[in-house]
Amino acid sequence: MLQFVSNKHKEDYKSIEIEGLPPSFFELNRANFFENLKTKLKNYETDSVLILQGGSDIPRFDTDVISYIFLQESYFYYLTGVRDTDFYTILDIKNESITLFWKVPPESTKIWSYVPTLESLTKKYGILTKDMVDFYKFIGERNPKTIYLLNGTNSDSKSKVKTAVLNFPTEYEYLAKVVDNTELIWEILADTRTRKSQKEIELLQFIGDLTAEAHVSVIKAMKYDIYYERDMESVFFDYISKNYYTRFTGYQCVCGTGINSKTLHYGNNDQVVKKENINLMDMGARIAGYVSDVTSTIPKSGKYSYVQKEIYNIVLKANRTVQANMKPGVYWPDMHLLAEATILDGLQQLGLINDGYSIQEMLKNRVAYYFMPHGLGHLIGLDMHDVGGYLSFTPPRINLPGLNFLRTARYLEENNVITVEPGIYFIEFHLQKAFKDPLLSKYFNSELIKSFFGFGGVRIEDNVLVTKDGSLNLTAKLPRNIEEIEALMNNSSNLLK
Amino acid sequence: MLQFVSNKHKEDYKSIEIEGLPPSFFELNRANFFENLKTKLKNYETDSVLILQGGSDIPRFDTDVISYIFLQESYFYYLTGVRDTDFYTILDIKNESITLFWKVPPESTKIWSYVPTLESLTKKYGILTKDMVDFYKFIGERNPKTIYLLNGTNSDSKSKVKTAVLNFPTEYEYLAKVVDNTELIWEILADTRTRKSQKEIELLQFIGDLTAEAHVSVIKAMKYDIYYERDMESVFFDYISKNYYTRFTGYQCVCGTGINSKTLHYGNNDQVVKKENINLMDMGARIAGYVSDVTSTIPKSGKYSYVQKEIYNIVLKANRTVQANMKPGVYWPDMHLLAEATILDGLQQLGLINDGYSIQEMLKNRVAYYFMPHGLGHLIGLDMHDVGGYLSFTPPRINLPGLNFLRTARYLEENNVITVEPGIYFIEFHLQKAFKDPLLSKYFNSELIKSFFGFGGVRIEDNVLVTKDGSLNLTAKLPRNIEEIEALMNNSSNLLK
Repeated sequence: MLQFVSNKHKEDYKSIEIEGLPPSFFELNRANFFENLKTKLKNYETDSVLILQGGSDIPRFDTDVISYIFLQESYFYYLTGVRDTDFYTILDIKNESITLFWKVPPESTKIWSYVPTLESLTKKYGILTKDMVDFYKFIGERNPKTIYLLNGTNSDSKSKVKTAVLNFPTEYEYLAKVVDNTELIWEILADTRTRKSQKEIELLQFIGDLTAEAHVSVIKAMKYDIYYERDMESVFFDYISKNYYTRFTGYQCVCGTGINSKTLHYGNNDQVVKKENINLMDMGARIAGYVSDVTSTIPKSGKYSYVQKEIYNIVLKANRTVQANMKPGVYWPDMHLLAEATILDGLQQLGLINDGYSIQEMLKNRVAYYFMPHGLGHLIGLDMHDVGGYLSFTPPRINLPGLNFLRTARYLEENNVITVEPGIYFIEFHLQKAFKDPLLSKYFNSELIKSFFGFGGVRIEDNVLVTKDGSLNLTAKLPRNIEEIEALMNNSSNLLK
Repeated sequence: MLQFVSNKHKEDYKSIEIEGLPPSFFELNRANFFENLKTKLKNYETDSVLILQGGSDIPRFDTDVISYIFLQESYFYYLTGVRDTDFYTILDIKNESITLFWKVPPESTKIWSYVPTLESLTKKYGILTKDMVDFYKFIGERNPKTIYLLNGTNSDSKSKVKTAVLNFPTEYEYLAKVVDNTELIWEILADTRTRKSQKEIELLQFIGDLTAEAHVSVIKAMKYDIYYERDMESVFFDYISKNYYTRFTGYQCVCGTGINSKTLHYGNNDQVVKKENINLMDMGARIAGYVSDVTSTIPKSGKYSYVQKEIYNIVLKANRTVQANMKPGVYWPDMHLLAEATILDGLQQLGLINDGYSIQEMLKNRVAYYFMPHGLGHLIGLDMHDVGGYLSFTPPRINLPGLNFLRTARYLEENNVITVEPGIYFIEFHLQKAFKDPLLSKYFNSELIKSFFGFGGVRIEDNVLVTKDGSLNLTAKLPRNIEEIEALMNNSSNLLK
């Protein structure tokens, strides 16, 4: 086992998935939110409260069995740290206080489930927790001029955010009149989540480190212990669950072998891994709610073939070039174009793109889209595709092939954490379209490209923090150079000594 | 590693989670359903079809990320074997044929996800699979006198079964008039699922065997490698995922240490396992959709204390006595009472229940309910709490303490598979109620019982097949005698040689 997690983090965070993050972590999140509210909310009604409803267990169709272990709704978690079901919270915007409400179940529930006391919840979350029976009375006594609720639509899923359900009893019905679900409150909360606090950054570094460790455990298993694609997933999950106690991955593991490596969100993971195959492993850990999102692409055999090496090194160069150019103020679509330029240049040198055409011309004509039909990267945090990508006060989506898949077109800000995940994929039907396009066909060496149709794809994905004057790769410890990876796979790595 | 799975099953089933069960498995399920329809459906309209809609991905709040790996809705899976999202099926009741329908996505989807062809789906599932665009035309051409849909309420969850959503286009609107969602069709399907086919039984034996192996892997890890409750869960899941490729457990693992072992559906699994603790581990595998549900109760130290041993052996006797008395025609509530009688007798001998009262009297006064506040067992199959427990044509729920928690009050039938899971738990507030009850207090040696309030609980749970003239324990290979378990934990087991 290779340890990338620092000894200090190992001490502070190793059991955090079990013990939970300390209340101070979420106090800082709330402070950042209140600060952002003050800056952005027009016609700011300070004599107001914001009410959020936490998540409930998600049933699998009509069964009563817990098939899916509970994972809190992210906005609620961000502000409260609550990891249990069926909570409400009231944030007082005037005095920046917070109160939790939980419906104390009948005593008989204790036979079936662990039932905490309100006192123990108050201690656990560091937030005064009251019985839900006092919820409306509490609001009535506070008597705010406005009751804000969350309301808005996720720009990735197109799903509505969870809006707290309120059923005012008759005596408090007058409060319904001051309910305001302006989207701006939700936007400001989503926007706050795009700039990580120092505590969030430290946690994400820890998760990046342990995800790198887990990737290495799969890389080392590849030659002799991986038979099905599914084995990559199980070796990865075994590593993070046994060593860091997590019950989740950050998202469904993408373990594509051979031609499956070209399918961006492949998740079947049910094919046999053949010895000539390249394997794309897009797998991240989820710890204390926060996730990493990391891709390695490695050969089954322990040795990259000549063409695998050539393609891999172009993608790696794109990844490194982007990271070297990231800093606050950089327009993210420009980074996407920079990755494309690096890829176009590499493919031109390799002869897959014909000589005599400038990178600039090809960028304009969206040539790289046929090799990398996805966005360069996305914000990451509590959600793998994290929120705040497109808001009313941020730059809009660009309606051009490839660029339209970017999950944000923001200017980078300090403390953004974003994935950098360029890739080259040989997708037959997609490239055939380009070959047939009268404007595009001239760029492509179609005969040579056709010989790559069984290749699959390569993606190299890191999680990158935007710093004050540059960037910091939170997943930097994962070996990326071909020599390092081959040494690891063949037990001749200096890292192993 | 102890191998309980037979070599034949190892060969036939080891990769079944990846490769899927063969179409013949589900053909047999359908044949049993059609047979049952003929027997039970009054005013049987044979010129009819039954339409089911399969499941879609279940989102986690507003995210677009697959947090929960897809697991098919159970009725749909039972009849079709389909493991992919967004299918419909039409079963023709007249000629007992079946057709699948799937919405072929736009070609661009292939960039992101694995998209099968209709031909490959037809081959994979052994059922003609058509494009969803032909769905209503297909029904129109068939022009049945009745279109049956599923409709009913799960007696465990109180949730409605998934009813196929139909949106007839104008030209086929007349078909809406023949839609019939009588609950009886759903009841007959649920009832069919209570009697397992020979293929289902063979699979459940395999799952029982491998779950026993996985329990043994945790039992062997307990003394030296289990620090948190969570470790029991991760050792268990690692075993089944690495060896049998599953991505699921049968249900959320219950890993209660010390006093947490008394909480029936405890699932936090976040406490430290202390050396004097007993540990209740209720954990089952899910393979190819079907589940096992198994509980072991073992000491951290590798040696049961005197009182742990006494309580354990009473529960084991109740488990074994019930199994010895199970056969077709037996009224399941009688087995619950038999378990209670064994427990009452044991506790009386141990002095926790006062002398001088007959078992019969105590059964009548529901004394055992204060030690075992749950039902003896439940049907099991595709769902952990499987369907068909209470239907309009089966005996009703008994409204008496303890018996009211039985998830079925059926007379046992050949090929039922049901859990046998007696337990003794020392739940302070629950027992205090009995101590204070003027009619009940005399039975309890309250002073002695109070000394057990830190004990927790013991449950021993097997999955048992009702055979032609008795029962067969599908989880029999799991060591249950204290001597066997202690030998395993201390590496002195004959099983290990």
